[in-house]
Amino acid sequence: MWKDRVLSSEVLRSEEGRRVKLAGWVHSIRDLGKVVFIILRDRDGMVQLVFSLNTSGRELVEQAKRLGKEYVVMVEGFVKHTEKAPGGAEVHVDRLQVVNEAEVPPHLEPDQRAKVDLDVRLDDRMLDLRRPENYAIFRINHVVLSAARRYLESEGFMEVHTPKLIATATEGGAALFPVAYFDKEAFLAQSPQLYKEQLSAVFERVYEIGPLFRAEESHTNRHLSEYVGIDVEAAFADEEDVMRVLEGMVAFVIREVTERCRKELELLRRELKPLSTPFVRLTYDEAIERLREVGIMIEWGHDLTTEAERALGRMFDGPFFIVDWPTHLKPFYIMPREDDPSRSYSFDLMYGWLE
Amino acid sequence: MWKDRVLSSEVLRSEEGRRVKLAGWVHSIRDLGKVVFIILRDRDGMVQLVFSLNTSGRELVEQAKRLGKEYVVMVEGFVKHTEKAPGGAEVHVDRLQVVNEAEVPPHLEPDQRAKVDLDVRLDDRMLDLRRPENYAIFRINHVVLSAARRYLESEGFMEVHTPKLIATATEGGAALFPVAYFDKEAFLAQSPQLYKEQLSAVFERVYEIGPLFRAEESHTNRHLSEYVGIDVEAAFADEEDVMRVLEGMVAFVIREVTERCRKELELLRRELKPLSTPFVRLTYDEAIERLREVGIMIEWGHDLTTEAERALGRMFDGPFFIVDWPTHLKPFYIMPREDDPSRSYSFDLMYGWLE
Repeated sequence: MWKDRVLSSEVLRSEEGRRVKLAGWVHSIRDLGKVVFIILRDRDGMVQLVFSLNTSGRELVEQAKRLGKEYVVMVEGFVKHTEKAPGGAEVHVDRLQVVNEAEVPPHLEPDQRAKVDLDVRLDDRMLDLRRPENYAIFRINHVVLSAARRYLESEGFMEVHTPKLIATATEGGAALFPVAYFDKEAFLAQSPQLYKEQLSAVFERVYEIGPLFRAEESHTNRHLSEYVGIDVEAAFADEEDVMRVLEGMVAFVIREVTERCRKELELLRRELKPLSTPFVRLTYDEAIERLREVGIMIEWGHDLTTEAERALGRMFDGPFFIVDWPTHLKPFYIMPREDDPSRSYSFDLMYGWLE
Repeated sequence: MWKDRVLSSEVLRSEEGRRVKLAGWVHSIRDLGKVVFIILRDRDGMVQLVFSLNTSGRELVEQAKRLGKEYVVMVEGFVKHTEKAPGGAEVHVDRLQVVNEAEVPPHLEPDQRAKVDLDVRLDDRMLDLRRPENYAIFRINHVVLSAARRYLESEGFMEVHTPKLIATATEGGAALFPVAYFDKEAFLAQSPQLYKEQLSAVFERVYEIGPLFRAEESHTNRHLSEYVGIDVEAAFADEEDVMRVLEGMVAFVIREVTERCRKELELLRRELKPLSTPFVRLTYDEAIERLREVGIMIEWGHDLTTEAERALGRMFDGPFFIVDWPTHLKPFYIMPREDDPSRSYSFDLMYGWLE
């Protein structure tokens, strides 16, 4: 449409007096009578627009007064540097085109800080996602995936896509969603596990980022019917090699998010500490010993409870691996240790209390 | 495992006499009595191994004779340049470790050139995928996705993942797979269309690469129950902007595949012509006129038949767009033209006879 449109962030970097075209959404309006300040939001951030009698003329100032929040507009004007504007620059507008009007319930205005119930937010999810906090989460999600892929490709992994419609279960029969597949029954894939094992016996290093489905009835924030998983599989690798790829990927992703999402992290008031590799390796036996010391008794061979995971999380500053799990706690495709078949070549990566 | 393992392609680039470690699969064996030649295959290609009395000793030569096709092996040896070896270099082995033996039916040996029925191939898909032709297809697929993402990200598109379990149909009620979602009925997503429209009204430019599901009963090579789609959506764009992104992406992908998959294209005997942008734009009206000239009659307002698409494909050397489709042939979310509401702002990209 407007081929030479620039993004908000570019305004802040532009020299004084540069003529720019912008497009976006009216985030907020401050009407001071003779001058109207509008914060314009686009995919890249926000920038202040100024409508004044001097530059814009009476008609345009009146038009600006009639704009509503979330109206879609295109504007042209000149960059002016001033310390009073957020980011240090603003655009003095002399041309305005309203692309679309909008009717937004006041409690859903994206610049609204009050908490609104989830149900209400989901009913108007588009408006809800325009809140800078949600915007930031999507942007960070994008950078996480992009960084994970970049890391894996640099390590020689090939992207694959395995079937999501499958004939039988991968990990136990429970937690599967049945699908009516023409006149047969099929299921939604819980995991690409068996596929990626076959594929790594051909392509050596494969990864998949895609949706996975688990029909878990539990309603906690650790359960989801559908989620996006990052699956990695490698041939000619032992468990130490796999941990090295995993910790390398996590550290790289954290570094990329820290660098590319500074604005978003600031907005969400999160700080990411750089991670140094290798991460700590704690054997399952050491873990239950450490837990005993703080009064949490796990009998050898039993899975760690949520309480136990939380306690371990508090003992370590960053992510850590729990290795050498009892073989019978792991699925059939996990290899028992040669020196002690009751223990397996397996690991869980923990970060705080999250596995 | 072997931290300093190198890949086959590195052998071909190594200087004479360099000591290397390799791991992979036995692709073929040529036993000449005093010397055994083995082609080793890894994720990067193939390299010739030489077992001779001189370098390897009698015991190792005997061991090499007993290897079978697709055995998994690790070897160490010295690089030797010779015109007789494929690629100009080979490895004279003095250490061999058999990681795993294999039993491969002769008709499924990956170096077998005879055609085998699809059913048989699918029964042993892992072996089938080891055939260099199939390997090449997966590798090209990987590069296509990687290049598409790189192009879209450079154009400011953000990756999103939309739900695959949905409550209602996107494009007509047919062709949906029903899922038993706990005690309710859900469906598998045919398209992220409605999601991506909402998301582009927030993030402006979004893309998704993921599985899509269509319960189409037709058994042709133009129908699939499940496939991986590349979905793109942009705000502040007209149809011409969208075509520009699409043709830019296709041209970039072709260029990347040409550069990064030279070996694979050669193996598959495919040549890719570089595409110059912009692609031809043909209106629907022009298309039916051109078809009339070659004796194919399409009444205005009717969809193009497969015969018609094939005929058009023969008229153009590269990809082309058909634009300005009759509005009623398109889904409800396609915008009618302002100057003629019976025509719409829509396009199909054609390449040969493929839409």
